[in-house]
Amino acid sequence: MHAPNSVKSLPLGLSSRAARTQEAPISFLIATALRNPGLINLAAGLVDPSTLPVEAVREVAQRVLSDSKRAREALQYDTTIGLTGLRQEALSRIEKLEGVSAGQMSLTPDNIVITTGSQQALFLVGDVLIDPGDIVIAAAPSYFVFTGALDSLGATILSVPMDEDGMDVAAAGRLLERVEAEGRLARVKFIYCTSYFQNPTGLTLSAERRPKLLEIAKRFSKDHRILILEDAAYRELRYDGPAHRSIKSFDSENRYTVLSQTFSKPFSPGLKLGYSAMPPDLLDAVLHEKGSHDFGSSSLTQHLALEAMRDGHYDRQVQRLCGSYRAKRDTVLASLQRFMPRRADLHWTHPGGGLYVWLTLPKSIDTSRSEKMFETCVDRGVLYVPGDYCFQADAAGKKPMNHIRLSFGQVDAAKIEPGIQILSGVVRELLENAA
Amino acid sequence: MHAPNSVKSLPLGLSSRAARTQEAPISFLIATALRNPGLINLAAGLVDPSTLPVEAVREVAQRVLSDSKRAREALQYDTTIGLTGLRQEALSRIEKLEGVSAGQMSLTPDNIVITTGSQQALFLVGDVLIDPGDIVIAAAPSYFVFTGALDSLGATILSVPMDEDGMDVAAAGRLLERVEAEGRLARVKFIYCTSYFQNPTGLTLSAERRPKLLEIAKRFSKDHRILILEDAAYRELRYDGPAHRSIKSFDSENRYTVLSQTFSKPFSPGLKLGYSAMPPDLLDAVLHEKGSHDFGSSSLTQHLALEAMRDGHYDRQVQRLCGSYRAKRDTVLASLQRFMPRRADLHWTHPGGGLYVWLTLPKSIDTSRSEKMFETCVDRGVLYVPGDYCFQADAAGKKPMNHIRLSFGQVDAAKIEPGIQILSGVVRELLENAA
Repeated sequence: MHAPNSVKSLPLGLSSRAARTQEAPISFLIATALRNPGLINLAAGLVDPSTLPVEAVREVAQRVLSDSKRAREALQYDTTIGLTGLRQEALSRIEKLEGVSAGQMSLTPDNIVITTGSQQALFLVGDVLIDPGDIVIAAAPSYFVFTGALDSLGATILSVPMDEDGMDVAAAGRLLERVEAEGRLARVKFIYCTSYFQNPTGLTLSAERRPKLLEIAKRFSKDHRILILEDAAYRELRYDGPAHRSIKSFDSENRYTVLSQTFSKPFSPGLKLGYSAMPPDLLDAVLHEKGSHDFGSSSLTQHLALEAMRDGHYDRQVQRLCGSYRAKRDTVLASLQRFMPRRADLHWTHPGGGLYVWLTLPKSIDTSRSEKMFETCVDRGVLYVPGDYCFQADAAGKKPMNHIRLSFGQVDAAKIEPGIQILSGVVRELLENAA
Repeated sequence: MHAPNSVKSLPLGLSSRAARTQEAPISFLIATALRNPGLINLAAGLVDPSTLPVEAVREVAQRVLSDSKRAREALQYDTTIGLTGLRQEALSRIEKLEGVSAGQMSLTPDNIVITTGSQQALFLVGDVLIDPGDIVIAAAPSYFVFTGALDSLGATILSVPMDEDGMDVAAAGRLLERVEAEGRLARVKFIYCTSYFQNPTGLTLSAERRPKLLEIAKRFSKDHRILILEDAAYRELRYDGPAHRSIKSFDSENRYTVLSQTFSKPFSPGLKLGYSAMPPDLLDAVLHEKGSHDFGSSSLTQHLALEAMRDGHYDRQVQRLCGSYRAKRDTVLASLQRFMPRRADLHWTHPGGGLYVWLTLPKSIDTSRSEKMFETCVDRGVLYVPGDYCFQADAAGKKPMNHIRLSFGQVDAAKIEPGIQILSGVVRELLENAA
């Protein structure tokens, strides 16, 4: 009926979305990290295995599973929006972090959805807002997993520069003016902003810029609302400097902002849970979409997260992580200071929290995956994230190629200095060879 | 800068997909079930709380979390494709169920992805294959959560009738001939088939039809492969009758079929895990998409599932569930036999497994949500799924309105007989009033 050979070569009929979707760099990096435990891994966004809350989770698991009524709830399906108690605790957590009451943000637990990590929330918000060709405004650089997801949704990402105070909000305003002048304002769906200790730079949006960004979103909301998607994954990993209110906390009517937080970074990635507060009409759309994706995240891990929040394990773990990561950040900064060549065009960020330091090298050094810098580092036992992952190509198809994201998340504290010494040695050699 | 009132009424700029996406009926039903514990719930697809594997999960949790190396793996990120050991166990499970070796199906653990319930696998396969207007062939009736997801993807669902032997495979062939004659074969992406104890009918695809359906998919694969998405969620809940090989087991080159199985029905929904075997090129596309959605399901629940499979808890739980659900199914069938009026146009299925019996009433009775039958049943304390949820409207916009899905999953065994007595009483009254 058919020739086996021709059948063998028959392609799949992939969707346009699949055709746009590339392998997420983080999947490659996580897999590489798991396969090569010998590398000094300054790349992967994994957390520090030595600080994972093993005893805490064992204890809450024992408690949840020893109470047979509770255990049955945890082993049954829950709702698409997520466990009621966990949404209440999540909102209390947000209130505590803001120093602003839920009422002042027009938030109730029914404005909060529990997702499979905060990544799922970011994706769902993108999915219910973006048609191919729609515009998202994002900082340059930005978190590459989410910009990859935006690419797969067909979004056009317009970049706004950053400085020490985070996203340049005035530049975002000028960009929107230009987009409006071009008649494309109707295509702008949201502004993506990692407002605390950003991945990849470690930079934080300043206090002054927070209400301003909200004002800009409102000002350019003409025929529809332009939202702010505030990614606060690293918020609780704060080592020094002020505890800023979120952009969301200024959105008193809960109309313009989504605040996404996670259990992965401040507690444990293995629970794979995040929570997001958002406007009710957006939440409806997100829930309908999540109903199609999975109709609810794991109820077992939701019960564990709830117990950990209720009994103080969560707070203690955050404190413990802050102490541990603070020391690792200090080691990164001291090692860079000690080993990197001193030049005006070689510098790095000094983040007050999070898991990343952003290193800017002289423009003569190309840090990308196929170039000498990256290959030499891997040969000598160090892995980093090439900075070009985090940028959008400009009109000429160019990206900045001289940046590196250094993560001090997973890496053993004792390996940081030797890792940065190797990295610095490669930089020094390349600069000397070029000279 | 703007008038608050006009801002207040500004809409969201939702995507076309969001505009197509309705609330999943199951979200409503699950929420209703959780809110109304007093109703005799013959509707919800929840599992029986009294048979959830509380001790088993407590024991495996204790074991995983007491070994600090293992615990750290369970609390860390894993890969997008899922835990290696779990994929190996899942494949062994498939081999055992088929009585066919992995090699004869060209399957390795790298052809298997772990997902957040099998629902996520079904959705991802749809997402990477379907553009709006593409065609999916499905049995009528079909599982309404997935057909809802297909609607949201913009698929055109073409229906194939069912009989006691499951999907009418010859009718599927005739349908494809017609589609080809209409020049639309290029739009056909896959055939969706719940091959064991189907939701909603409880019917199983006969042994004879399994290789035939695969042959049909191959025969009509002209410029691209038409796949079979085989949903085997209820496969292991088998109470009597033969243990059929899957359609997948006949696909010796792993080219045409996706086999989706789950931990939710045969073990515990709270882990929220499923596993699917699929062709490598499709798996690549699915992994890229899953990388955007969540870059991997909960590693903690994957470790728990792995332990439960390895140590025999999983097998024992399946045996226990089969004993318990078999008795409940028998009660459903005996109660229908006892209480339902005897008429040629009133009959029901006699499933050999799964969680559902499909009841066909005389055409004078409309079972839909806003009609007297449904409302009277809820008033008297019984909830069912109106059968029209499970059908596509025909060219005239009509659906069969005289069916009911009865689930014996969640309902307490002692409530089945009284529930069906109430339901039968309402049917009897409506028939008498109509006479």
